[in-house]
Amino acid sequence: MAANAAKRVLVVAGVGSGQGTGAATARLFSQKGYSVALIARGADSVNKLTGEINAEGGNAAGFPIASYSQEDIATAWSSIRSHYPKPEYDIRAAVWNAGQGVWKPFLEITPQEVQQVLETNVAAAFSFSREAITTFKQNDIDESNGKRGALIFTGATASIRGNVVTSLFAAGKHGARALSQSLAKEFSKENIHVSHTIIDGGILTERSRKQKDPEWQKNEDVRLNPESIAKSYLYLVNQDRSAWTWELDLRPAHEKW
Amino acid sequence: MAANAAKRVLVVAGVGSGQGTGAATARLFSQKGYSVALIARGADSVNKLTGEINAEGGNAAGFPIASYSQEDIATAWSSIRSHYPKPEYDIRAAVWNAGQGVWKPFLEITPQEVQQVLETNVAAAFSFSREAITTFKQNDIDESNGKRGALIFTGATASIRGNVVTSLFAAGKHGARALSQSLAKEFSKENIHVSHTIIDGGILTERSRKQKDPEWQKNEDVRLNPESIAKSYLYLVNQDRSAWTWELDLRPAHEKW
Amino acid sequence: MAANAAKRVLVVAGVGSGQGTGAATARLFSQKGYSVALIARGADSVNKLTGEINAEGGNAAGFPIASYSQEDIATAWSSIRSHYPKPEYDIRAAVWNAGQGVWKPFLEITPQEVQQVLETNVAAAFSFSREAITTFKQNDIDESNGKRGALIFTGATASIRGNVVTSLFAAGKHGARALSQSLAKEFSKENIHVSHTIIDGGILTERSRKQKDPEWQKNEDVRLNPESIAKSYLYLVNQDRSAWTWELDLRPAHEKW
Amino acid sequence: MAANAAKRVLVVAGVGSGQGTGAATARLFSQKGYSVALIARGADSVNKLTGEINAEGGNAAGFPIASYSQEDIATAWSSIRSHYPKPEYDIRAAVWNAGQGVWKPFLEITPQEVQQVLETNVAAAFSFSREAITTFKQNDIDESNGKRGALIFTGATASIRGNVVTSLFAAGKHGARALSQSLAKEFSKENIHVSHTIIDGGILTERSRKQKDPEWQKNEDVRLNPESIAKSYLYLVNQDRSAWTWELDLRPAHEKW
Repeated sequence: MAANAAKRVLVVAGVGSGQGTGAATARLFSQKGYSVALIARGADSVNKLTGEINAEGGNAAGFPIASYSQEDIATAWSSIRSHYPKPEYDIRAAVWNAGQGVWKPFLEITPQEVQQVLETNVAAAFSFSREAITTFKQNDIDESNGKRGALIFTGATASIRGNVVTSLFAAGKHGARALSQSLAKEFSKENIHVSHTIIDGGILTERSRKQKDPEWQKNEDVRLNPESIAKSYLYLVNQDRSAWTWELDLRPAHEKW
Repeated sequence: MAANAAKRVLVVAGVGSGQGTGAATARLFSQKGYSVALIARGADSVNKLTGEINAEGGNAAGFPIASYSQEDIATAWSSIRSHYPKPEYDIRAAVWNAGQGVWKPFLEITPQEVQQVLETNVAAAFSFSREAITTFKQNDIDESNGKRGALIFTGATASIRGNVVTSLFAAGKHGARALSQSLAKEFSKENIHVSHTIIDGGILTERSRKQKDPEWQKNEDVRLNPESIAKSYLYLVNQDRSAWTWELDLRPAHEKW
Repeated sequence: MAANAAKRVLVVAGVGSGQGTGAATARLFSQKGYSVALIARGADSVNKLTGEINAEGGNAAGFPIASYSQEDIATAWSSIRSHYPKPEYDIRAAVWNAGQGVWKPFLEITPQEVQQVLETNVAAAFSFSREAITTFKQNDIDESNGKRGALIFTGATASIRGNVVTSLFAAGKHGARALSQSLAKEFSKENIHVSHTIIDGGILTERSRKQKDPEWQKNEDVRLNPESIAKSYLYLVNQDRSAWTWELDLRPAHEKW
Repeated sequence: MAANAAKRVLVVAGVGSGQGTGAATARLFSQKGYSVALIARGADSVNKLTGEINAEGGNAAGFPIASYSQEDIATAWSSIRSHYPKPEYDIRAAVWNAGQGVWKPFLEITPQEVQQVLETNVAAAFSFSREAITTFKQNDIDESNGKRGALIFTGATASIRGNVVTSLFAAGKHGARALSQSLAKEFSKENIHVSHTIIDGGILTERSRKQKDPEWQKNEDVRLNPESIAKSYLYLVNQDRSAWTWELDLRPAHEKW
């Protein structure tokens, strides 16, 4: 079988409630013919989402993990590679959408919270990237776009700016962004494409639906659609080798910035 | 006729030799159903490109100008609005791809060159933007993406970094980028989408074909394809209001940065 | 006379009302033993300031110009070099503090204003820099700091961020900042130090005294003291070759940013 | 005793071999009348430096720690506050100069190294900052500069740019920089000044003396003097409340950037 005839697989870490960016990305890539492997803490949300995607004719499998430790991430990827083996499958795309938001006055942040956020937002991003890049290096170059694989990091405004009450969140997000830029430079020579998005605004999810007023929900000018973010991820993955992007920002039309 | 049934028009300024980003953008948008209006200095290159697009079933018209002065740009837009009148047409997209590159040691730059570069790269961008935004404000919101119009600026590495021998080019490109960011913030509330791209690398054009060795031409890892840049412009124009981008970078896989 | 025994001269362009950054810099450098040459539009304010500095035992001379055109700036520098001739004097420091602020909604900005702001904020900065650098190249290396000369640009928040109503001002300030960065890279090899400051906040001047309430005046936490800015300029000029700064930001303690 | 009559104390973490930035800062502040408290791993280097400073008439004390864990840092600060008690002393300045450099290809970095670098470069910076800010909040406002205290972070090029072989180092340095920016914004309202320096180039230390050729040592144009960096720290601490700096870069004249 020619390498490029293999079925394409997307790995997403962080599918949360099944309503946000990770889940929307899984759904969209499934519609475009990708098999999808979902990593998340908590089997329930993963199972619900894989069930939904498979019911619509997709090929999804869940890989729930107990924590974003290096061991758990490595084990999940190992299972994914077994579940979607070469040469039938090629893992061609990976989205790091996990991590933890923290908004607290600096003096209320505990040393335990610092450690936990650095682990989930930075160390886990290193572990996930190590698996993704090692896996991509086994791929042939995809004739459609000239790549061995594409790795996307979901970032936030806190990735580029520290602010009052974001000292810890910004430290974690800045760290992951620095990783993404280093990887982009180190592995572009091997035709592995690493990019980073800056999500600047509130995303419409189950949780934000409850917190915000109904007007906010209905108004597409003021909040981000996970489906629209997913489209940008598909665009990034499809960009060909001659003109690819490390970083783009995404915000709703009426966001003040 | 419903506003959204009007035919979409793209205006591009700067189509140079017919081989670069502006021309590729015109071709791609034409293939996607846009009518295209081309502004450039020199009737020859414009006529050749419109002829080519029309021969392939497109609807292109050229608006050659003598200079990028405010008067000439205003006149061209006025002619474009007459040529593609409402309600049959809606001018929905505009690409500012003009401007002049200068790479010279600082002490060799003449006051005349400073004035000329500021005029073509900054003042002309103001004139073009004024026309585009005034025109977009007359549009209804497009149901497909929630916008009145999209304005894209072609930037470069010099847009974000001054370097040896780029003092003048960088001054011009930084100025245009600042304009694009201000416009993005000022007119997003009216659902006008302004974005800026950072083209970081050599583009494959007629001229670069002659200057570089044949290996460079053939190697998609090392130079930008104008067609790939054009795809990013189409993606930006299609982004919906809930998640749109101000800035993205584009470079070939093997570019060192 | 040994080169380093020559009296040091500072050239400042933009001394406005005699109350702001340019005037404070002239006063402070005079107190530190520099002779000062003041360039400004309008002879009155220049004469008042030189009179004041000379009355306190300083050595100041005014070089009023009709406009910030290339010719006027070149003429002023020519007069300055004659007034403070080698080998008795060495022009060792120059501050570009001129330029014009504009805050207007984009669609109200006229083409004439665009041209004027680009001339005063960018083209004039090129002219001033050309003179300063050409002059510095004639100097020996100063034994005290390892430099031939130091050129400082006064920037603003608009130098690094476009915003609503700052499209034109930001275009001008971004352009001057790009110039400063290019010069810093191009001429550092000749031991000419170029730096750029980002003044982020309101400065206490004659004009702001009138516009703001008296509480603002008295509260050093909320507005910039021109004297404090001047101290940073003196610090930059004194930095030695082994560790010098291109850019620093300056803001009052309670500024929100 | 009036609060402002108290003796000023500087706390420095990271004095390494006694040859670099931390040690030079301690020496300079001691010469300017500060008592200095030195935190470092390894009692030997600390004792040598305190001995040296005290022999020259200074007042230095060492606080060696076994690791940069939260507990050890808190214990060190507790000892410092006891050693330099109020009202006789005011701890007015703190420099976070610790952290670990790592330059390795991404795929050679172990999970243990990731954890260690995040602990020493980010988590430890949180611990040090918590102690510094809590301590500063007890101070009156210093009449000389309008501050309760000044906290400086030593950064690097990797603080603002990820690169090949710097993925881990950049992640740590970006994290600490984000922390510094958040703190600058959160505590400026309480007149606590937080700043961050970007050291861009090689510093002349015992170690670099051995690694580089003798020409490099002698040539002040190509390497940073720790004494010159220390001067910038003194300048930052002395900046008054009306115009203070969050970030500045420092590099040798002939550094390519």
